[in-house]
Amino acid sequence: MGVGTELERFFAASRLRASDYGEHYVALWDCLEQASTGGKRVRPALVLAAFTGLGGTDLSLATTVAVSFELLHTAFVIHDDVIDRDLARRGVANVAGRFIERAIAHGAVSTQADTWAATAAILAGDLALSEAHRALAMLPVERELRGRLLDLLDRAVFVSAAGELADVTNTTSKEPLSVEQVVFTLEQKTAVYSFEAPLQAGAVLAGAGVEAINVLGQFGRLIGVAFQLTDDILGVFGDPAKTGKSVVSDLREGKQTALIAHAGTTAAWPDIAPFIGRADLSEEEGAEVKERLRDCGALDAAEELARSHAERAVAALDTRSIPEALRSHLTTLAGTAVNRTR
Amino acid sequence: MGVGTELERFFAASRLRASDYGEHYVALWDCLEQASTGGKRVRPALVLAAFTGLGGTDLSLATTVAVSFELLHTAFVIHDDVIDRDLARRGVANVAGRFIERAIAHGAVSTQADTWAATAAILAGDLALSEAHRALAMLPVERELRGRLLDLLDRAVFVSAAGELADVTNTTSKEPLSVEQVVFTLEQKTAVYSFEAPLQAGAVLAGAGVEAINVLGQFGRLIGVAFQLTDDILGVFGDPAKTGKSVVSDLREGKQTALIAHAGTTAAWPDIAPFIGRADLSEEEGAEVKERLRDCGALDAAEELARSHAERAVAALDTRSIPEALRSHLTTLAGTAVNRTR
Repeated sequence: MGVGTELERFFAASRLRASDYGEHYVALWDCLEQASTGGKRVRPALVLAAFTGLGGTDLSLATTVAVSFELLHTAFVIHDDVIDRDLARRGVANVAGRFIERAIAHGAVSTQADTWAATAAILAGDLALSEAHRALAMLPVERELRGRLLDLLDRAVFVSAAGELADVTNTTSKEPLSVEQVVFTLEQKTAVYSFEAPLQAGAVLAGAGVEAINVLGQFGRLIGVAFQLTDDILGVFGDPAKTGKSVVSDLREGKQTALIAHAGTTAAWPDIAPFIGRADLSEEEGAEVKERLRDCGALDAAEELARSHAERAVAALDTRSIPEALRSHLTTLAGTAVNRTR
Repeated sequence: MGVGTELERFFAASRLRASDYGEHYVALWDCLEQASTGGKRVRPALVLAAFTGLGGTDLSLATTVAVSFELLHTAFVIHDDVIDRDLARRGVANVAGRFIERAIAHGAVSTQADTWAATAAILAGDLALSEAHRALAMLPVERELRGRLLDLLDRAVFVSAAGELADVTNTTSKEPLSVEQVVFTLEQKTAVYSFEAPLQAGAVLAGAGVEAINVLGQFGRLIGVAFQLTDDILGVFGDPAKTGKSVVSDLREGKQTALIAHAGTTAAWPDIAPFIGRADLSEEEGAEVKERLRDCGALDAAEELARSHAERAVAALDTRSIPEALRSHLTTLAGTAVNRTR
């Protein structure tokens, strides 16, 4: 049974169970299932790649671990949307968006509809987070192994929360962050739970040695940062039709990216700073800021930073503890981190 | 090591760990610890009462289970405050309240401060929820027993989420709910996770038989409802100096209580309905509504309902499977549920 099937079964069972508590709760589970589909299932793929690449054979165990990390991701995405007050993701109404419509259809006034939406999204995230823990807790493996997997999950939650908080508190900073601070935040907020922990969990479950586990952790952090640096570049310089987001949204939000961090170290900064974090930034002003970010060398610097992280990630794999097939697979992945079309 | 000590150790370790990620994250853990103290630790007391009352001896295991349910409660309280947009609890600034002050001290403008607050509170709840799961998952007991404890936790999360959602969606209802609907929501939102599950977890851990576990579940649901019905009565008719909340806040919010449900079945309803859910309800109007709720018999009916639930809870204990000492302890508890001074 693959990850998709295991998730489908979980949601079908939960919906059935929810039907004892009324239509709104069933709708909440529908929204949660929707939130867990449509993504690229990167984390399950990493768990399974490390597991099979390091000689693991019991795929049913690995699938459950993969499901755990996918649900952790679902929980974070849903709660992140609450924090950002987003009502859609990938162009589709998210949990909050759907519950606002639902509330209005049930005669709620607008403040009530907002409360329905926040409630549904917070609870949906809590339910996904709970199942992420439960999947590992119920894993039929010996105590020591389960403990190590639970420690990886615990670290993923702990560090991601630190990163999510830093991401928000950073936005208030009057000065641009240093490039190091930006990288550190990306590592915390995304690289650990999305790359490092899934790879290490697959390796631990396969019974890999300490060195392989450490190397995969290092690879995961570096490649996770490379992915995020590239995402941030595409967020401003990408094609909105491909990225699904407006090129001005990060600028309006004042998001602290490597682009901004680099620009902050250049003579062009006084001409860029006034536009960053302005909610009313126009498309024309956005285009002008892009021009300046390019001219001052910030785009090149950010691209180079992403590339160097991907290279260091690949270099880390150059050890006997990583079998050739796994190395080759992860090297290809590293390429896709930075070579995405604008 | 008692529940308080185990929690203190967990928070001390977490704070130390958080210090690698900056002062805001340490402050978040401080807030989380504050949120977990100051309450009455009802749930841990129930776990331990059932455990020792049914012959359990290894208190270190029971303490960890008790910690799990206390952290589950902390998580729910924190997320509930986000949903209700509350900035204080028991007269003290809560996670959001403290992070708003923190944001402003760091130069945030007001919308940014709101985001700091929501972020900190959502993450603090996620961290508490995660540890609630982790405590049980790491419990050094055999697989089957751990599975049963995890199932109780899972049910507690699942049913509470249903109740929390119903509580919010009910507020939009134009018609008063039926008394049965009110009781069903109280059972879901509070009785299951606060009374039923902790009692049953203590019993399961003590190795109790099926009958004792079922009886404690029944007692827990009934007494949990009795407590909540009484809380709702005190929310309107209690002494604000003792309850710590304004007597008009539930009325302004349009909270669907047994008082309102009963009033909705009487001829007095058209004279009460216009005042319920009005955010601008004055203290004088509140006093008038109280008078009408009393005159129409809603106060008596709600008190009688609470009393009958407490009586049925005590009656359920009348079985050989519940040892005398435990029965006596729980009967005293049942008395405190309904005999609280206004």
